[in-house]
Parts: sequence; structure tokens; C-alpha cells
Amino acid sequence: MARMVRHEANGPYEVPEGTDLPVWICGCGLSKNKPYCDGTHKKTKDEAAGEVYAYDDSGHRTLVKNP
Amino acid sequence: MARMVRHEANGPYEVPEGTDLPVWICGCGLSKNKPYCDGTHKKTKDEAAGEVYAYDDSGHRTLVKNP
Repeated sequence: MARMVRHEANGPYEVPEGTDLPVWICGCGLSKNKPYCDGTHKKTKDEAAGEVYAYDDSGHRTLVKNP
Repeated sequence: MARMVRHEANGPYEVPEGTDLPVWICGCGLSKNKPYCDGTHKKTKDEAAGEVYAYDDSGHRTLVKNP
């Protein structure tokens, strides 16, 4: 239940003043609306414990490491 | 100038009501204080364009893909 996600940004995102809180921030790494959650983490719910995956842009998952 | 980052979370982080804004959210993927920026992105500033890296827990960088 983990995944390798490509990151292009080399600085932080800002949640600016005036934003209505609470805000939900992507934790799975897969959101296409970063830094915000877009619900894509639902695709990770059936990842197997101890395995590591990669996801392509269309959300297709492949196993990258099997312990 | 990109990197593959392991993500364990399979749900979002919350920035709760009452948080003082602005908030800076990790974009590089490397913060140890996610979802918040901890300044680790400074280590990525000299990544070469078009290359992809991985970082270990101590911040040591290795090249994982050379186009």
C-alpha cells in the first residue's frame, strides 16, 4: 500500500489567505488538482499491504516492487 | 528536474479551520512534515532538466532515469 509518484514541482504550493477552511490536501500523490484532493485516492484503496505501485496518467496501476 | 517519491497515505490531509493562512504545502514531495513545506525542496534546485531522481531518507539523491 504505497506508490511512487513523479513530482515536477520544486517549491511549495500556497493555500492563500481568504481560502475557506477546512481544505483537503492530496496525500496519495495522485491528484490532478494539487495541492488539493480530487478523490483519486479512492483508486488506492485496494492496494495490497507491503507492495509498491505506479500509476500512469490514465490511472492504470502497475506493480513496481514486490517485497 | 523531477523525482519519484514514495507515498504511503491513501487519503488526503486536512488543513483545518482555525489555521493561520497562508499555508505552504509541500510540492516537491520530500517534506517530512506533510502536508506542509519544511524547506526540503531546496535540495531539488540543482536537479538537471529532463532527468528524474530519487531521494533516500537522509536526502541523498540518485539518478533513476536519463532520457
